[in-house]
Amino acid sequence: MKINVAIIGSTGYTGYELVKILAKHPNVNIKYLTSRSNKNELYINIYPQLKHILQDIKCVEDDIDKISKEVDIIFLALPHGVSSAKINKDILDKNKIIDLSADFRLKELKTYEQWYCKHNSPELLKNAVYGLAEIYREQIKTAKLVANAGCYTTCSILTLYPLLKNGLIDTDSVIIDAKSGISGSGRSVNFNSMFCETNENIKAYKIASHRHTPEIEQELSMACNKNIKVQFTPHLIPMNKGILTTCYAKLKTNLDENEIRKIYKEQYKNDYFVRILDENCFPETKFVINTNFIDIQIKIDKRTNNIIAIGVIDNLIKGASGQAVQNMNIMFGFDEKTALL
Amino acid sequence: MKINVAIIGSTGYTGYELVKILAKHPNVNIKYLTSRSNKNELYINIYPQLKHILQDIKCVEDDIDKISKEVDIIFLALPHGVSSAKINKDILDKNKIIDLSADFRLKELKTYEQWYCKHNSPELLKNAVYGLAEIYREQIKTAKLVANAGCYTTCSILTLYPLLKNGLIDTDSVIIDAKSGISGSGRSVNFNSMFCETNENIKAYKIASHRHTPEIEQELSMACNKNIKVQFTPHLIPMNKGILTTCYAKLKTNLDENEIRKIYKEQYKNDYFVRILDENCFPETKFVINTNFIDIQIKIDKRTNNIIAIGVIDNLIKGASGQAVQNMNIMFGFDEKTALL
Amino acid sequence: MKINVAIIGSTGYTGYELVKILAKHPNVNIKYLTSRSNKNELYINIYPQLKHILQDIKCVEDDIDKISKEVDIIFLALPHGVSSAKINKDILDKNKIIDLSADFRLKELKTYEQWYCKHNSPELLKNAVYGLAEIYREQIKTAKLVANAGCYTTCSILTLYPLLKNGLIDTDSVIIDAKSGISGSGRSVNFNSMFCETNENIKAYKIASHRHTPEIEQELSMACNKNIKVQFTPHLIPMNKGILTTCYAKLKTNLDENEIRKIYKEQYKNDYFVRILDENCFPETKFVINTNFIDIQIKIDKRTNNIIAIGVIDNLIKGASGQAVQNMNIMFGFDEKTALL
Amino acid sequence: MKINVAIIGSTGYTGYELVKILAKHPNVNIKYLTSRSNKNELYINIYPQLKHILQDIKCVEDDIDKISKEVDIIFLALPHGVSSAKINKDILDKNKIIDLSADFRLKELKTYEQWYCKHNSPELLKNAVYGLAEIYREQIKTAKLVANAGCYTTCSILTLYPLLKNGLIDTDSVIIDAKSGISGSGRSVNFNSMFCETNENIKAYKIASHRHTPEIEQELSMACNKNIKVQFTPHLIPMNKGILTTCYAKLKTNLDENEIRKIYKEQYKNDYFVRILDENCFPETKFVINTNFIDIQIKIDKRTNNIIAIGVIDNLIKGASGQAVQNMNIMFGFDEKTALL
Repeated sequence: MKINVAIIGSTGYTGYELVKILAKHPNVNIKYLTSRSNKNELYINIYPQLKHILQDIKCVEDDIDKISKEVDIIFLALPHGVSSAKINKDILDKNKIIDLSADFRLKELKTYEQWYCKHNSPELLKNAVYGLAEIYREQIKTAKLVANAGCYTTCSILTLYPLLKNGLIDTDSVIIDAKSGISGSGRSVNFNSMFCETNENIKAYKIASHRHTPEIEQELSMACNKNIKVQFTPHLIPMNKGILTTCYAKLKTNLDENEIRKIYKEQYKNDYFVRILDENCFPETKFVINTNFIDIQIKIDKRTNNIIAIGVIDNLIKGASGQAVQNMNIMFGFDEKTALL
Repeated sequence: MKINVAIIGSTGYTGYELVKILAKHPNVNIKYLTSRSNKNELYINIYPQLKHILQDIKCVEDDIDKISKEVDIIFLALPHGVSSAKINKDILDKNKIIDLSADFRLKELKTYEQWYCKHNSPELLKNAVYGLAEIYREQIKTAKLVANAGCYTTCSILTLYPLLKNGLIDTDSVIIDAKSGISGSGRSVNFNSMFCETNENIKAYKIASHRHTPEIEQELSMACNKNIKVQFTPHLIPMNKGILTTCYAKLKTNLDENEIRKIYKEQYKNDYFVRILDENCFPETKFVINTNFIDIQIKIDKRTNNIIAIGVIDNLIKGASGQAVQNMNIMFGFDEKTALL
Repeated sequence: MKINVAIIGSTGYTGYELVKILAKHPNVNIKYLTSRSNKNELYINIYPQLKHILQDIKCVEDDIDKISKEVDIIFLALPHGVSSAKINKDILDKNKIIDLSADFRLKELKTYEQWYCKHNSPELLKNAVYGLAEIYREQIKTAKLVANAGCYTTCSILTLYPLLKNGLIDTDSVIIDAKSGISGSGRSVNFNSMFCETNENIKAYKIASHRHTPEIEQELSMACNKNIKVQFTPHLIPMNKGILTTCYAKLKTNLDENEIRKIYKEQYKNDYFVRILDENCFPETKFVINTNFIDIQIKIDKRTNNIIAIGVIDNLIKGASGQAVQNMNIMFGFDEKTALL
Repeated sequence: MKINVAIIGSTGYTGYELVKILAKHPNVNIKYLTSRSNKNELYINIYPQLKHILQDIKCVEDDIDKISKEVDIIFLALPHGVSSAKINKDILDKNKIIDLSADFRLKELKTYEQWYCKHNSPELLKNAVYGLAEIYREQIKTAKLVANAGCYTTCSILTLYPLLKNGLIDTDSVIIDAKSGISGSGRSVNFNSMFCETNENIKAYKIASHRHTPEIEQELSMACNKNIKVQFTPHLIPMNKGILTTCYAKLKTNLDENEIRKIYKEQYKNDYFVRILDENCFPETKFVINTNFIDIQIKIDKRTNNIIAIGVIDNLIKGASGQAVQNMNIMFGFDEKTALL
């Protein structure tokens, strides 16, 4: 079985990783790649990396009505605010959609508009399933609209989820200190992504104001059945890809590290892409780069009674395009790992 | 006035930065450079960077008794545990000493031996002044033995000091998430400092067990007159130099950001090398690389009632050799900034 | 059909890439991984990257007599001089061997011993086929002993081959200025591979004396039926992987760029892993990283009458382990691309 | 004695390095900093690096007529083509000018307009002195208009000069394979300077067409009294700063390495900023980063009869702003090294 696929906004870093993965997918036929900035160009001229791998396919305009009639699934790799203007009920009736933007991730319209901008199709919010397979696999199976989880959020939520779900920590004490490679800023040309501005440098940014905060809070609040707030601080690291989240919380249990590690393993026992590392092996982003894995480890500090939980992902794979393909595989009944090994 | 200087252990990264700074110091004559691994080699053959800058001087063995008779000050740039075996009361009577290791930083012998190893001259501990000019300038002026502050510690202490001294935060809530360039691991050949093991990678290490923890706790406890514990997590970042510490604490005050920034400015008003950045300008390590500055900024998150304080230094300059020269300048009555601009 | 495979010296960077590729190969069963330094350790403890991908397999000692009885092919990923001591006629009778060292690459014993060291099994030299599929595919099909081509050499030879084979250049004028990422130095701990020694730095090394020189000369001499010498200068670049060779030669033809590009395309028309780029697209190492491709482009400078030919590969894939698997696929009649996409 | 200085175009990377050096210069008062993009902004808000070092000075518009009446020297750090439109005879009568663009480097108008664009003040070309102190020190002393030498050109010319001046090589055989850090592309925002496009990557660019070619040819032709052509190929290396040029030529002499090294030492015996390295010590860009030095070494390959000469500089210091200050020091009779150590 082969499905026809369209990628709207295919030339950004996320779009490229998506094309690269889908080009190897045995059940996928890439039918449309759209791009405003590179209209009518051969995709392999934009990304010579894919010569001999991707067939000769030209970027076209994103005429979504036309496209929606000819494909089985549409990936939206567009900026926040643009995705929600692109789709409507009609399109959703005909197609499955995986939106890689944040537009359908937050359940509360008010929260979305407070952290982002005006929402362009609020009536579709109720249709969206949060696209994090390790938590919503069952709902994703039948979803028409999947709001693919964000990069920082995927790493933060999966790293902390078992602690909150099992009531092991003080819910007022969660601090997430996150570090990301530069590709997280996207492929748009901007001063802050220039080599000499980022290389040999580290900085925190959007302190106490990053938009992934409410998304993390929404999912962790559902895990513990309580509205919680988290302190989230992202940093830019001079490397292309990778996210590491160092999460801190006050422990509320006497369980030791091995017992908590067991809880993690139990939580994720059916999740191939979650690897709970063995004792004394701590996550490094190089363990997961170019893969769809998340690696997690925990440490208890008895002096302070804090637990430190650390997770790593490839921000463009498990944090975006790999996760999107994982979701697609689930939606179409393919093996969840297809094209992701 | 010219003083004669010896550097014991001069070929490590710290030693090199020290030689480089002192070679430009108008009041300094570099008399002895010692090195076990490079005995009898010309220093500029080991570091061609200094050709035309440093005179032809050969590395010699560290016969400290002989050396101590011929110089005014000895810098010890040796591993922890080795420094304290190197000196004794006799040498201290004749010389001023700045020790860049951790051997004389902790007041409590027990704490030292718990986190490090057996101490080789515990009787000298009481003579040592903690070498952080911004806090101990007066004592340094007359000190014979200065225990130069550590790299992570300098950055952590100065970033948090005003908050603790002024009772602005919950002393049980301090979390320090620190990030360092690879030179922090030293110049000794080891697998974990190899390019392909560290480049394009980030990891946390020595979680809940790094030796700078008790040093930070000692100084912050003195600031708030109370024994406190901090959560300290260091990370390795793929860059040569630089430390950024992201510090978190629960606020215990209604002061706003501007008022707290004013307290910081007041605290450091006589400290040329501390720069409290203007509102909305957040520290980046590139601001301070190759300088003796520490840049600091704070942010309050009203949603969580946390304050986030961020500091950056060059780990080899303000975190080691620049600080050592700053201390030397104070000890000899030179302008504190000499050779540090 | 599944073949049993052993990798002797499996924990270096080359060994790791080989294990990673073979773990995905549908026709391969990894039976033995040997390592002196990590004997009895689980391979995934050394490389957590492979958790969930590689089965639980422990590194064992390299008892090659025992191993040779139980596998169909042995990969030798050992240092130069060690490989040739490891094998003998008996082993070759039982097994196919792909040697990733330089021990069997040079036809002339004298040349080998002049540039390397004493050879430990010179009697086997005549059995060896040079393992560069694009030139020796037919011979590799039936070879028992394949001397896998080197990294700099693969990139240099394939980039220059059509020029020499077709008599387009002055054979006395060849200059190869090569640039390599740090992984080319291997995984052994040494000062020159440390992060702070290589990051933010470029240097030439082994100028006029690098051991890949005679290997390049041997193959290019055969291409043009004449003993030629080349000037080869390698440089170390602060990146993990990738080689770029900038090759210069005096033109001896009036053919223009398009005509010469056509000759390149004709030469490699059956070689999936060679991509002659379109006009105005010049090779960058990022085009080929993590792939088995070599990308090539040429440029003629009419002012100087030089041709500049540029090639790029991933030094650990097309320059080592990918090439080895490509050779294995040919030796066993598998599709040449298996596990290499 | 203090001179008043203006920098036109002060916020690029070159401008910044110039400000940083001049801020430490004991004989300089920085009177004007101009910038179109950052008009009316405090310079230290654009470059917080200089807080506490540079006085509070705002960027102003580049009203060069007004400025020229109030300063002793004007540095032009403007794009090619803009510099020559900025100045005229009147301004030159009142001021000394150091132009860091290429506008006045080429003696031949035709060559300039062939490689660059229309020249806006060709009548001033005859007034310009080529700003490479090691060759034109005497002329610079009395020059009113100095055309500061380019980055690749400084490194290429000084590395090859003694070979050509002394007739040691075949003048038709010169190949310069140059490698530069990313800052060479300037601070303007552009796709090719983005971190993820340049990091972990190397590429050649402007092959056989880079504008520094005729500048190198002009100076080397004058060295050997013959119009020569060189093959010049620049490459981009993932590091902030530094240029390394690997230069190849056929030898026409029987002199050995030591004898040629002696010729180099003799040539540059009065040039503090040229360091001819000792035998077996080969240049690395880290030797010269953040300094005004150029380091040079040569190697003869007897197999091919080529000489390989290698030079390294910091492209923003000796290749631009350091060189400009060196020229200024000469023009005003200050010690040539002032502010450059």
